[in-house]
Amino acid sequence: MKKILNNPVDYVDEMLAGFTAAHPQHYRLHGDTGRVVARATPGAKGKVGIVTGGGSGHLPVFTGYVGTGLLDACAIGDVFASPSAEQMADAMRAADTGAGVLRLYGNYGGDIMNFDMAGDLVEFEDIRCTTVILADDVASAPKDEAAKRRGVAGMVYAFKIAGAAAEAGRDLDEVTRIAQKAADACRSVGAALSPCTVPQAGKPTFTIAEDEMEMGMGIHGEPGVWRDKLRPADAIASEMMDRLLDDLPIASGDRVSILVNSLGATPPEELYILYRTVKARLDAAGATTVMPLVGRYATSMEMTGVSFTLIKLDAELESYLTAPCDCAFWSVK
Amino acid sequence: MKKILNNPVDYVDEMLAGFTAAHPQHYRLHGDTGRVVARATPGAKGKVGIVTGGGSGHLPVFTGYVGTGLLDACAIGDVFASPSAEQMADAMRAADTGAGVLRLYGNYGGDIMNFDMAGDLVEFEDIRCTTVILADDVASAPKDEAAKRRGVAGMVYAFKIAGAAAEAGRDLDEVTRIAQKAADACRSVGAALSPCTVPQAGKPTFTIAEDEMEMGMGIHGEPGVWRDKLRPADAIASEMMDRLLDDLPIASGDRVSILVNSLGATPPEELYILYRTVKARLDAAGATTVMPLVGRYATSMEMTGVSFTLIKLDAELESYLTAPCDCAFWSVK
Repeated sequence: MKKILNNPVDYVDEMLAGFTAAHPQHYRLHGDTGRVVARATPGAKGKVGIVTGGGSGHLPVFTGYVGTGLLDACAIGDVFASPSAEQMADAMRAADTGAGVLRLYGNYGGDIMNFDMAGDLVEFEDIRCTTVILADDVASAPKDEAAKRRGVAGMVYAFKIAGAAAEAGRDLDEVTRIAQKAADACRSVGAALSPCTVPQAGKPTFTIAEDEMEMGMGIHGEPGVWRDKLRPADAIASEMMDRLLDDLPIASGDRVSILVNSLGATPPEELYILYRTVKARLDAAGATTVMPLVGRYATSMEMTGVSFTLIKLDAELESYLTAPCDCAFWSVK
Repeated sequence: MKKILNNPVDYVDEMLAGFTAAHPQHYRLHGDTGRVVARATPGAKGKVGIVTGGGSGHLPVFTGYVGTGLLDACAIGDVFASPSAEQMADAMRAADTGAGVLRLYGNYGGDIMNFDMAGDLVEFEDIRCTTVILADDVASAPKDEAAKRRGVAGMVYAFKIAGAAAEAGRDLDEVTRIAQKAADACRSVGAALSPCTVPQAGKPTFTIAEDEMEMGMGIHGEPGVWRDKLRPADAIASEMMDRLLDDLPIASGDRVSILVNSLGATPPEELYILYRTVKARLDAAGATTVMPLVGRYATSMEMTGVSFTLIKLDAELESYLTAPCDCAFWSVK
């Protein structure tokens, strides 16, 4: 896969320069690290801050979801690499309006270590902070080891729901409880068809034959549950729904949302072909589908493949999911 | 490039089934052809209708831009193939509220022939219709043969501006005049790095070496102006801006918008890297950049590459460009 770039070492900094230049109404660079993006218009005094962080290469995740009714700030690392503790601490400072900060991010070792250190860095700055970690990828560990699972596109739902709760004026304990409830209600599974290339590495994250796919592969190319010949769309969608519903059973009358997500290169046309099957499965289970999301919400640059994220909603989660939000990539009215 | 699909002959119909199921608040299938998408909530009685049509495989173009302040209906063909005259006529019927219909589409022979025939089909149905054809691709013919140019992403601006004029209650002659002014004010140029595969053909639209790019290539793989080694992002952006500004000079004080568009697989990270150079060029010319668009607005499925579209604005065009619109792919508040 070919990439349009200059010197690979400048990839993230040049990306952020263009990103903030293109959307000055949404984003600004905060502080001196060059890697903290904050809301152009900070949240109101007394609003709980929500911060995330992680590697670059997943737009709109992570930085893109800084916005009204979403995140307050984000620390962004090199491609697929954790930001530093200092950058994360600066993001926490940007997000704090005096009501404390929720750290809401995916279950990756580097991010956890650095966000914990960032908490230590701001310890004497009177910023109260809590943590919710997404671990939604059912293919990455069995159900009885669910805490080991990777965090993937489920964070899109968690950002949206926690962001709306904070915007509604809930306090830090409440925003944290609601974010944890959203995280617990999410399950994701992915399927990859082709890799992406990390600019500074200059070669694909993995290799796969021209007629093969891998079920359950992670967004950085982490091994999945099987690799075999590429299957038809309906078979892929059915197996992915089986895996989700096996882990998170739904019953008649349940209200759910589902994200049918492109990992990057897979076009929306193919997502809609998959969504037919997804929606039929949810209908057959007697569930009501609320605000389905079909598009590129969490990517790995030019990776080919898809992920599905299912979230089971109660009235509280649904009200925050459907509340208004606004960023350059997602607007709910 | 691998695709997620079932039987290739069902690609468009399955895509449309998922598309309307995912976004029932925006889109509905109209009539019996299965290939006409109309606004879920039709325009008010007396609003001028705007209709487009063209081949599938370009989402959000064409169908995605049916929405409030945008298009009223769209006839969609097989991948890269014109819809039939009967489908186009049905789209015109769906778009008509009694105030006439503007046909607004790209300069492709099949689409022109079928839209003309569609006009004949509705001749006795008392639907007054006008036509504006986009021909914005500067690489596809020299300036003195501008009428031969292909229509590409410039139609995004034309849809937006004409749609806002119709929503504002302008009559058919006025909407047509404004759409023509938008079309005349647009210039586009593209650069392709890798092809896409038409499902029923099963093989890429063209071949290109792993270290090559083609400047000026069309969105269906039509030949460009040169093919050479892949260049750095800044060099690509500079040449593309040279080509646009050579055809549409701008002066200090001008107000413009620019679309930095992915042809499909090229990720937003790379678009932002390009946007740095684009914005610097516009700033250096003394122009004010209004509502820049960076993202996937007009694609060719999983094609790798980008296009830039520059539009020079007067007060009227700017007011309609920045007016509200809403569809599943684009919301302006």
